Amino acid sequence: MPHDDDQPRAGLSRRGLLGLAAGGGAALALAGGGVGFALGASRTEPDAQGAHAFFGAHQAGITTEVQEHLHFAAFDMMPRSDRRDLIELLEDWSYAASRLTQGLEVSASGAVGGGPDAPPDDTGEALGLHAANLTITFGFGPSLFLNEDGDRYGIADRRPAKLERLPAFLGDDLDPAQSDGDLCIQVCADDPQVAVHTIRNLSRIAFGRAKLRWSQLGFGKTSRTSAQQQTPRNLFGFKDGTANILADDQDALASHVWAGDGDPGWMAGGSYLVARKIAMLIETWDRVRLGEQERIFGRDKVEGAPLSGGTEMTPPKLSGLDPHSHVRLAHPDANGGARILRRGFNYVGGNNALGRLDAGLFFLSYQRDPAQFITLQKRMSTDLLIEYIRHVGSGVWAVPPGATSGSYVGAALFA
Amino acid sequence: MPHDDDQPRAGLSRRGLLGLAAGGGAALALAGGGVGFALGASRTEPDAQGAHAFFGAHQAGITTEVQEHLHFAAFDMMPRSDRRDLIELLEDWSYAASRLTQGLEVSASGAVGGGPDAPPDDTGEALGLHAANLTITFGFGPSLFLNEDGDRYGIADRRPAKLERLPAFLGDDLDPAQSDGDLCIQVCADDPQVAVHTIRNLSRIAFGRAKLRWSQLGFGKTSRTSAQQQTPRNLFGFKDGTANILADDQDALASHVWAGDGDPGWMAGGSYLVARKIAMLIETWDRVRLGEQERIFGRDKVEGAPLSGGTEMTPPKLSGLDPHSHVRLAHPDANGGARILRRGFNYVGGNNALGRLDAGLFFLSYQRDPAQFITLQKRMSTDLLIEYIRHVGSGVWAVPPGATSGSYVGAALFA
Repeated sequence: MPHDDDQPRAGLSRRGLLGLAAGGGAALALAGGGVGFALGASRTEPDAQGAHAFFGAHQAGITTEVQEHLHFAAFDMMPRSDRRDLIELLEDWSYAASRLTQGLEVSASGAVGGGPDAPPDDTGEALGLHAANLTITFGFGPSLFLNEDGDRYGIADRRPAKLERLPAFLGDDLDPAQSDGDLCIQVCADDPQVAVHTIRNLSRIAFGRAKLRWSQLGFGKTSRTSAQQQTPRNLFGFKDGTANILADDQDALASHVWAGDGDPGWMAGGSYLVARKIAMLIETWDRVRLGEQERIFGRDKVEGAPLSGGTEMTPPKLSGLDPHSHVRLAHPDANGGARILRRGFNYVGGNNALGRLDAGLFFLSYQRDPAQFITLQKRMSTDLLIEYIRHVGSGVWAVPPGATSGSYVGAALFA
Repeated sequence: MPHDDDQPRAGLSRRGLLGLAAGGGAALALAGGGVGFALGASRTEPDAQGAHAFFGAHQAGITTEVQEHLHFAAFDMMPRSDRRDLIELLEDWSYAASRLTQGLEVSASGAVGGGPDAPPDDTGEALGLHAANLTITFGFGPSLFLNEDGDRYGIADRRPAKLERLPAFLGDDLDPAQSDGDLCIQVCADDPQVAVHTIRNLSRIAFGRAKLRWSQLGFGKTSRTSAQQQTPRNLFGFKDGTANILADDQDALASHVWAGDGDPGWMAGGSYLVARKIAMLIETWDRVRLGEQERIFGRDKVEGAPLSGGTEMTPPKLSGLDPHSHVRLAHPDANGGARILRRGFNYVGGNNALGRLDAGLFFLSYQRDPAQFITLQKRMSTDLLIEYIRHVGSGVWAVPPGATSGSYVGAALFA
């Protein structure tokens, strides 16, 4: 099944199909037979309820109204994989993403795959569920361009200068097993089963080409990207993201979010994604008196109004806040105008052996340059909040523009 | 603040308030002042949207239409705690549960607690959220009645004979850190933030009296308790719980779910809860051909119809199924008529170092006698599914009847 790099395919590659059926002799038969094994009923009709287009100028999942659930995953390419593998993987992922976001199964063979004698392409747990506003957003880490094995994919000279591992910050306690990765996929949906189904099936497609490195579930979002959304609360009980960049603020998006100036051409319309897993010392925080909690954030707890006065949406007067309060330190006026688009989620992983909750914020932000995040994060080193949090995971990825219909995400990088 | 055991209280005990404010001198001041510190706005008005009554003949969360999210927690009583501590804890938990289920903060002092100089009673992350069909269901483990420290609470002679640690089963690989517990709380809600907020605040109230032993989040339910609910799918992609006992089937509830015969009087209207954390070998399963997957379950994957013919709701003809298929082995006709009310959830905790998903089923079932579960589980030892699952956590609890208004859950145990 040879094909030109420039030709989008109509289905999954042989390798992608093999991944879905990994381990069975039947898989080879299936792959050899192409992708036309659609037998009988599948995930009903394409489900337009809450479906976002996968193709477009920008990838969905950045300005899209923030959904209720997250499954984020980082992948590493397999040893000895080559440029052809990487392109084919991105083609396969794009093909699958274009289906999954419409509420369809992962391949055209539907729920039953190649029939009874092959493992089904789709794992099935999302059958009967709506598209649930699913978005799937892909990113390329610094190590994809160059790592200890060198320039594996012939793209080292196309690495954006802005794309470098983040520097160490005060308060970092990073776990390599929850950090970095050649590739990332941010999956957001209003149904956790739909989100989990997506990461699971994209991981299967990657078989033999890339391996899941780490993944993180989240819920309850901690930011809003639409004026229609209420400002959600983080696990410290405070409204978060009041001053976020909203999806309809084209000027702010152009100035702060979309890549372009100083970027290679393939990144035009893209953005840079920073992820930080921030553990919260919940039990310690819960013993802090209300007045101190509010001083630390710089907002009142119930309404979310800045302590300098007004209501939630009133711009804070920085001079009226503690110099080390979170709102003051994170404010653009204190950071040379730097703003970011936040898209984080709360997480709870159960509890540790002492009975303390394993909980915190999975922070995600989009910006035209990771330097924006770095500026803010350095400023946070004197944030009063720092006593109550610990950064345990970190990563940065270049998020290419959206794929054009029939092509694949990141195609311009390989053109 | 002394009080009689028979008198319900109007608010949290001093100990409960101290827990909410644990560690601060201010907490003592607050507790001394009683519970009347309601200052200003709080979690809006009592929120009737999706609110279930806490008080009633049975505890909510058993026949209640299964919600989208679970946070389950097991607790151990603290060393040297006494009968008074246990009763007061149950009173405090009942008081808090009666508020939380109505969309209110954990105590009458609202979102701001004792004012700026005290930690707020409520942690705040559910402010502005609906009640979200929250149910809070309490259970008593065998060790509460008698453990290596003896009869700590003077209730050993009131232990139901049916309440014993489950026997070992073939395929068990149990982790003590995910098993058992003197007490359990099953929290279900349609909003994960509401569920997490509940366990967090009930854990705080327990300060000094009981300690969180382990907890588990779940989503996407794997059972239905109402004919209006679609049958959900487990992470093997199959419909689960088609033949579950439904909330309006009073005969089946009386025969199979509600305790009574052979139980001490304090359990009348209660039930027995079994929890099993069942890890699924997802990647192995995904390589099984469709025909084999269907043979193992005994149902077709897309529709969920028994392989003996018909549609999803057609009763299976056992002779038409593989003798070791799941449906056949779990069927009441193969188990002396034993039926259970299932209420489980899927879980995904991320992935392990090999990139495999840490995922499975958090199985929960209610029955009038744990022997019903034991019968079924023993039968499952020859289930074809056993190759693809591993039981990693386990527990059993006596779930007392619902509290009467103004009293507390389990009151009859101490009468």
